[in-house]
Amino acid sequence: MSTPTASFRGIIPPMITPLLYKNQLDVEGLERLVEHMLGGGIHGLFILGTTGEAPSLSYALRYELVERVCRQVAGRIPVLVGVTDTSLTESLRLAEKAQKEGAAAVVSAPPYYYAPSQQELIEYYEDLADHMPLPVFLYNMPSHVKVSFEPDTVKAIAQHPNVIGLKDSSGAMVYFHTLIQTIKKENPSFSLLVGPEELTAEAVLFGADGGVNGGANMFPRLYTDLYEAAVRRDIDAILPLQERVMYISNTIYKVGRYGSSYLKGLKCTCSLLGICSDFMASPYHRFRKEERDKVRAVLESMDIPVVNP
Amino acid sequence: MSTPTASFRGIIPPMITPLLYKNQLDVEGLERLVEHMLGGGIHGLFILGTTGEAPSLSYALRYELVERVCRQVAGRIPVLVGVTDTSLTESLRLAEKAQKEGAAAVVSAPPYYYAPSQQELIEYYEDLADHMPLPVFLYNMPSHVKVSFEPDTVKAIAQHPNVIGLKDSSGAMVYFHTLIQTIKKENPSFSLLVGPEELTAEAVLFGADGGVNGGANMFPRLYTDLYEAAVRRDIDAILPLQERVMYISNTIYKVGRYGSSYLKGLKCTCSLLGICSDFMASPYHRFRKEERDKVRAVLESMDIPVVNP
Amino acid sequence: MSTPTASFRGIIPPMITPLLYKNQLDVEGLERLVEHMLGGGIHGLFILGTTGEAPSLSYALRYELVERVCRQVAGRIPVLVGVTDTSLTESLRLAEKAQKEGAAAVVSAPPYYYAPSQQELIEYYEDLADHMPLPVFLYNMPSHVKVSFEPDTVKAIAQHPNVIGLKDSSGAMVYFHTLIQTIKKENPSFSLLVGPEELTAEAVLFGADGGVNGGANMFPRLYTDLYEAAVRRDIDAILPLQERVMYISNTIYKVGRYGSSYLKGLKCTCSLLGICSDFMASPYHRFRKEERDKVRAVLESMDIPVVNP
Amino acid sequence: MSTPTASFRGIIPPMITPLLYKNQLDVEGLERLVEHMLGGGIHGLFILGTTGEAPSLSYALRYELVERVCRQVAGRIPVLVGVTDTSLTESLRLAEKAQKEGAAAVVSAPPYYYAPSQQELIEYYEDLADHMPLPVFLYNMPSHVKVSFEPDTVKAIAQHPNVIGLKDSSGAMVYFHTLIQTIKKENPSFSLLVGPEELTAEAVLFGADGGVNGGANMFPRLYTDLYEAAVRRDIDAILPLQERVMYISNTIYKVGRYGSSYLKGLKCTCSLLGICSDFMASPYHRFRKEERDKVRAVLESMDIPVVNP
Repeated sequence: MSTPTASFRGIIPPMITPLLYKNQLDVEGLERLVEHMLGGGIHGLFILGTTGEAPSLSYALRYELVERVCRQVAGRIPVLVGVTDTSLTESLRLAEKAQKEGAAAVVSAPPYYYAPSQQELIEYYEDLADHMPLPVFLYNMPSHVKVSFEPDTVKAIAQHPNVIGLKDSSGAMVYFHTLIQTIKKENPSFSLLVGPEELTAEAVLFGADGGVNGGANMFPRLYTDLYEAAVRRDIDAILPLQERVMYISNTIYKVGRYGSSYLKGLKCTCSLLGICSDFMASPYHRFRKEERDKVRAVLESMDIPVVNP
Repeated sequence: MSTPTASFRGIIPPMITPLLYKNQLDVEGLERLVEHMLGGGIHGLFILGTTGEAPSLSYALRYELVERVCRQVAGRIPVLVGVTDTSLTESLRLAEKAQKEGAAAVVSAPPYYYAPSQQELIEYYEDLADHMPLPVFLYNMPSHVKVSFEPDTVKAIAQHPNVIGLKDSSGAMVYFHTLIQTIKKENPSFSLLVGPEELTAEAVLFGADGGVNGGANMFPRLYTDLYEAAVRRDIDAILPLQERVMYISNTIYKVGRYGSSYLKGLKCTCSLLGICSDFMASPYHRFRKEERDKVRAVLESMDIPVVNP
Repeated sequence: MSTPTASFRGIIPPMITPLLYKNQLDVEGLERLVEHMLGGGIHGLFILGTTGEAPSLSYALRYELVERVCRQVAGRIPVLVGVTDTSLTESLRLAEKAQKEGAAAVVSAPPYYYAPSQQELIEYYEDLADHMPLPVFLYNMPSHVKVSFEPDTVKAIAQHPNVIGLKDSSGAMVYFHTLIQTIKKENPSFSLLVGPEELTAEAVLFGADGGVNGGANMFPRLYTDLYEAAVRRDIDAILPLQERVMYISNTIYKVGRYGSSYLKGLKCTCSLLGICSDFMASPYHRFRKEERDKVRAVLESMDIPVVNP
Repeated sequence: MSTPTASFRGIIPPMITPLLYKNQLDVEGLERLVEHMLGGGIHGLFILGTTGEAPSLSYALRYELVERVCRQVAGRIPVLVGVTDTSLTESLRLAEKAQKEGAAAVVSAPPYYYAPSQQELIEYYEDLADHMPLPVFLYNMPSHVKVSFEPDTVKAIAQHPNVIGLKDSSGAMVYFHTLIQTIKKENPSFSLLVGPEELTAEAVLFGADGGVNGGANMFPRLYTDLYEAAVRRDIDAILPLQERVMYISNTIYKVGRYGSSYLKGLKCTCSLLGICSDFMASPYHRFRKEERDKVRAVLESMDIPVVNP
């Protein structure tokens, strides 16, 4: 058994944000989505991340989402709230709201307009962690924020008692192994989570605490099963699950033309499954009929019933 | 004479935002700064851009700044307000405020968390321009927002009657010449401004309408003189002014270690000149004594009196 | 057991090129190095790759190296020869030499001055594979050659009967999993090897055939043990070996300041172990005393005897 | 008058390499091409650069080209030979040949497989300049070689008496102005040439010595006229010429789909003009009929007679 040692562990999906229209939540879809994931055995829920289109949402909508999700989850699992912002003041304001509503932690990627140096990152996070009313997860997301937390930077920031973990969405496994050896070995309660679901199995086998995997919006049980198999070190169980994860990765996430296909495929599938609307916040647009038909064909090839074609 | 043909032309400085402390304007410094630049003959004022640290400021502060600057300028020159945001809803909200306070136009760089494709950029700006209560300047800033407006994209967006110009901060003059030939030639009233002050002279010589030059916060007359010389096509006058611009570029903007040296040097100089505070919004920090002394030495080498060493 | 299915499998070290001086092989060091690795149980040998500084060597030296290594190995294991070149004519000339000397295959990364499009890559490799006198391994190395083989490109090129495998040095495990699912599943005899030694264990667990791992120049047995443990799916055996691999990665390969620290640390260690000279071809230089002392201290911390301090 | 102060000045075209087939020069086309450019008033000739496809050619072909061009030019203008190579030994060998055949200088971009640090660049060029039998031009080409010469690096290398100039193909005019102010001001005989022909006029106006402009293969007079107008500071003459240069840039160089359209359009045009073959070395391919027809239409729109449709 590879027993994860941190209190934040397992599959913690980065929730998509169901929208009915610009600046309006799909309230019923949101409720169904949360229960759908809880029914699939997820271990936590991360709202207002990249998959949640957080930067595209108005502040009013973000506050409403925090309120609704925290109240619905009602302590069944920990809720983590993304507070990444270019303005530290706005990050802190949102964190106050999250704390008030009962969230368990906040998740913060570096400010993403100006690219800070590593030294500036350390100073930024020491300041942020001092003022945050909730424990802080670092969020490494270089493709979107332009800078990466170097291992020595993580090491420095992780000294702060209010910093409890890191989610790595870089996809760079050499980097992730370095974090396991240099951060996790010294501080086993520091939670190391991996973003790309394609890497959750190997990350957990080598010492990670779990995965923040977008696919769990659609198929939560697949990812919790994969996580449990990795915890048991059961390679025979892992391989067919991994194959299914890769099938999704190479079909549903590749239907569209742009880098945003992952997110569009995810929302489209949730709509086809009858969970929630696939409306997207600007600058993105949901799939049109042609792409939607392709996603439907993928689901049919997987013997997954399409409720809302 | 290279007569600029657009109504927005000349030197339109991207104003730094004087701060006293986190989330608090340096109100007196701000007033001095605006008058200092007006006294130097600037032709417009652009607030809440990259040089203004807009993304780092809270929304409350941004609103206050719009109000104060518009009231102080009081129509003496046009005020342009940066409304770049990852959330279209928040962009529109800020534009409403700008319109209400009497601003002349808004300036918008692409949403900068998710990188839109060129087709998504076109759709985004058609939507944005439809809803903006003020004329829209496009802001090309690939180093910070990860995508560049390709010339064909500019051409498509520029068809919209509410899109009146583009500010290019890419520093890529081949690209800029392409915009001059393909956009400006067809629509002479479309305003083409160049960001890097090192390029204003040549841009105007070849058909640009002016420059959005940060150095004009410190030394407005230098940049308006350079602009006027370029309009007159007076190479003999341009060369010594250009040499001074390059001296500043290679000294004041290169004092620090990071990419942010431009901005830090600018604020430090304004503080040394007694104009306003050099406090910076997170994630940046003002220069410490060592760097400040270097900037002071540069000013002394230029025979510029230092009021506040 | 995860039985590798390709004929090229196991640990196939990318050999460093021992040099005495500019353009002169360290002949005795070379002989010791080859026997050192053979004694450590390696399954093949890859010369004239990135680790071998091939692009920095004169052609005369490359030809001499092919000759010496093939003759010394004398069929004990397969020798793979890097023929990556910006000139297809020179690639083919070197391949003729390799074939004549008894090499088993050639390894080719895309031409690396001009960046070809994916379609141009397909045409390039169809042409190259038609004319190569030996089977061809593709070499994915985007950090050095600027382009990556996209999965669909690999799929197209892999149809050619003379293309027998791919070595991936991208470090991007999501990409590697995609290759496993889309190329390897359809053609089990296609050899998939992973470059970064930090990823060999997980790659083999999920279906790769082995690793082209630079560390095997210094410590061949560590990497062949890790490979065998991964083939047996023996996680208990893997974890301490992986920890040692990561220790090397985070110490020996991080001693210097630049991206080239991996290569310099590798050569320095081989010199400290008394195997061969650490002279480097231009534009690199071997470690000076200060860095060499640091590498020595690392070896001592691992209880590895230093023969040549 | 902006009198260029260096001995290498004016329009020095980077010559395309006419090929009949893989690894075979189009000897007659080559002779016509050289005379065509000489007839257009060029001031020097640069062979074996990026436009010359040098890295794609076999060494035998490179040597043959040096020999043929030097003999044909026979001292009428200086010939500069590109010796950029990943192997310093091969660079020096080619330079020996160039010196023997009467070339005036060599041109060297950084070794382009491994990316050297700035300090390694300085050491590399000090070593190279010590051993080169001809004066050395630095060649800044970051898009192809991955590193840029930083201004301080140029300053350090330019101390070497055998380094006589720099050709900048970065397209970054802020950088170029910095070189003018920091290198050229101190050493007026140091030759600063600009690569992109779209920037030659402004570069010369501000102090450059000329342009290494690919378009001069097709239309040498256009570029020499533009250069002379810039030397005279004659803006009225410059603007229509610049417009024509931009027209070419936005049509002939944009016909194809890839980054290589510049080079393909150039060779295609020379073929349409009846000068030489448009065969291209691997990994590129000449335009097919569809693109060729587009280029022909561009030439017709410019009233340029097409000899070989």
